[in-house]
Amino acid sequence: MTETGATSAPGLAEIADIGRDTVRGGYSRHLFDDADRQLREWFVARAAGIGLDVDHDRNGNIWAWWGPPGPGALVTGSHLDSVPGGGAFDGPLGVVSALDAVQRLMASGFRPSRPVAVVVFAEEEGSRFGVACLGSKLLAGGLAASTALALTDASGCTLAEVMAGAGLDPDRAGRDDALLSRIGLFLELHVEQGRGLIDLGVPVAVASSVLGHGRWRLRFAGQGNHAGTTLMSDRRDPMVAAGATIAQIPGLARARAGARATVGRVDATPGGTNVIASHVDVWLDSRAEDNEVTRALVADIGTAAAGHAAEQGCTAELTEQSWSGTVLFPDGPRMVISEALGGVPALPTGAGHDAAVLAAAVPAAMLYVRNPTGISHAPEEFASADDCAAGVDALETALRSLAGRSPIG
Amino acid sequence: MTETGATSAPGLAEIADIGRDTVRGGYSRHLFDDADRQLREWFVARAAGIGLDVDHDRNGNIWAWWGPPGPGALVTGSHLDSVPGGGAFDGPLGVVSALDAVQRLMASGFRPSRPVAVVVFAEEEGSRFGVACLGSKLLAGGLAASTALALTDASGCTLAEVMAGAGLDPDRAGRDDALLSRIGLFLELHVEQGRGLIDLGVPVAVASSVLGHGRWRLRFAGQGNHAGTTLMSDRRDPMVAAGATIAQIPGLARARAGARATVGRVDATPGGTNVIASHVDVWLDSRAEDNEVTRALVADIGTAAAGHAAEQGCTAELTEQSWSGTVLFPDGPRMVISEALGGVPALPTGAGHDAAVLAAAVPAAMLYVRNPTGISHAPEEFASADDCAAGVDALETALRSLAGRSPIG
Repeated sequence: MTETGATSAPGLAEIADIGRDTVRGGYSRHLFDDADRQLREWFVARAAGIGLDVDHDRNGNIWAWWGPPGPGALVTGSHLDSVPGGGAFDGPLGVVSALDAVQRLMASGFRPSRPVAVVVFAEEEGSRFGVACLGSKLLAGGLAASTALALTDASGCTLAEVMAGAGLDPDRAGRDDALLSRIGLFLELHVEQGRGLIDLGVPVAVASSVLGHGRWRLRFAGQGNHAGTTLMSDRRDPMVAAGATIAQIPGLARARAGARATVGRVDATPGGTNVIASHVDVWLDSRAEDNEVTRALVADIGTAAAGHAAEQGCTAELTEQSWSGTVLFPDGPRMVISEALGGVPALPTGAGHDAAVLAAAVPAAMLYVRNPTGISHAPEEFASADDCAAGVDALETALRSLAGRSPIG
Repeated sequence: MTETGATSAPGLAEIADIGRDTVRGGYSRHLFDDADRQLREWFVARAAGIGLDVDHDRNGNIWAWWGPPGPGALVTGSHLDSVPGGGAFDGPLGVVSALDAVQRLMASGFRPSRPVAVVVFAEEEGSRFGVACLGSKLLAGGLAASTALALTDASGCTLAEVMAGAGLDPDRAGRDDALLSRIGLFLELHVEQGRGLIDLGVPVAVASSVLGHGRWRLRFAGQGNHAGTTLMSDRRDPMVAAGATIAQIPGLARARAGARATVGRVDATPGGTNVIASHVDVWLDSRAEDNEVTRALVADIGTAAAGHAAEQGCTAELTEQSWSGTVLFPDGPRMVISEALGGVPALPTGAGHDAAVLAAAVPAAMLYVRNPTGISHAPEEFASADDCAAGVDALETALRSLAGRSPIG
């Protein structure tokens, strides 16, 4: 399906061979790795090729301007990075659709009344440094630069080192008010990641809200020892406490209306098969429409973890890695876009997006394109050629309508 | 304690800086990685320096001969590799003690009646290719060369590729009858990995048996998906089944007399925090004196895994990675050694050893040195300077006694 997926939108075919993950399936494209660098080079060339002026901001994001940068600019785009073994559409569909829509507007002789830009945000998935929407959060001030620069990847490199290696000045990272002041509206097109549009039977919708979500680390610590010589009665094994906690999480999440909680990654140290772990990190993702529900669920999980740890003679420590409260997209831009598209439905989503991060600083809106599998963050993620085309049509129509107006607050 | 540990035996001080693991603590030294190569070079230079003739066998093991190679040779030594984040003693103590004991015999003018050799076995811990005692198993025919050569490390390299990269011919790997026929007795000195010698209050013991042990992979498979958009009720999450199984393992192990079962490593695919895993590999180590008990316990765990997987709409698959039945060391050599040492106690152990693998093909025996922490496969592993010296004294005495005799069957 990835094969089909990669070619169902013409722009995606151009990058279909970059960052394929032959072990997990799908794609692995992480901040400034080889795949990400190739994708960035591709974007710069593609944007320049249609006559846009490319600019790199202080936070690793790339901007391609049609007309002088801001103020009141109408910005569209998304991200090019992926989760490990992710699908072809999550992120790149918004970038290629933005380039296609802008190219069509230019070719049609349309003269926008305000500047237009296509943006690529850095590390939206947080797969390298553990914080989702890293580039948009730095730009909008949702994450302190000092905190971000000290983040480390799996090999111990800091974000500051990686940025410097990519030719960026880490000292200049952080909230960029000059750039923010140029943005009149950010409109992001994205493949839908759930079953909302399948159930509605339509190809395109506008976004109403993004569930509050965050990441936490549960560290269980015990006593590392030999798997063969240590009697069962002499153990303080943190993996047992981790397993018991993981098994209990779905029940705790179901008890809180609308909540979701997931463990997708477990890191045991030292991690040898014949070694009782000294500590185990369990990475928790939790979300809900109501921020208090998420907070309460995470507290429930922390309490369960402490209990299971104590039973094994271990300790459990809960640390928040990131948090984004529920975002309601503003009514004004959404109504203008929905009207221009003949009244498309509005959908909430459980997925985080750069648009939701930017919404704290500038007006923002989103368009979703139907995903017939309902599966995302996996190779099965898909959008048909017809629906991808409907997405570009909708984006072009929305941009044409919005770019004919004065800035919308 | 590692600092002290690394210098409590003089030979260990020479390699104290090789392969330190600054993340896990202790040492990470895996087959033909930079640390292992440095350790091999150190051994070759050290052995040549005391007048031994160094030879590399077909399976990655290194031999240093005092006198012409075999037959009836008295061989001592151990391994230099470690688990991830292992201690300073597990393996290297047996190698440095062997070099010290042989050097002392040479310096004293002792003339052995049979050849003597010091050996370093490859990949005893199985940390790179997942099979413990890889070098000794290949030599003794405990593992088919075709199976071994196809093993892959974490980066997807096969053992065949890694051997070729190290200058070995993979086509020549496998059981080596010519070399086995030269061995009259293999005597391995090793730090104890449990609390046996602490409880007995003596520094040195001989080995009576090694518990049967093996490794299994439990693969839980479900449906990878987005952690935010997938409702709890729509999930087939293999991590939940893995957690429930891990939590149940200690209870199942305690129900089988003398059995041990451990999960020290969990690999989720794709492994992103915001992704429901598509599959999760749980690595199981299980051991018991009675092989049938181990078999029954692993079957119990497989049944539990299948049940937890079914509850989550997932599947579970149990695959044996390696298996070594319980080894009883032969009475003859043990009694000779114990008598030469004035009647030291005999200890069983739950840890696997190259000596136990070789015991299937040649006479083998072991000496243990007390570990005052009772902790192994962790940085806290230790042996005091006095006990290390007692180990070298015992090894020298045993070699002197054995090398004065005709070959022992």
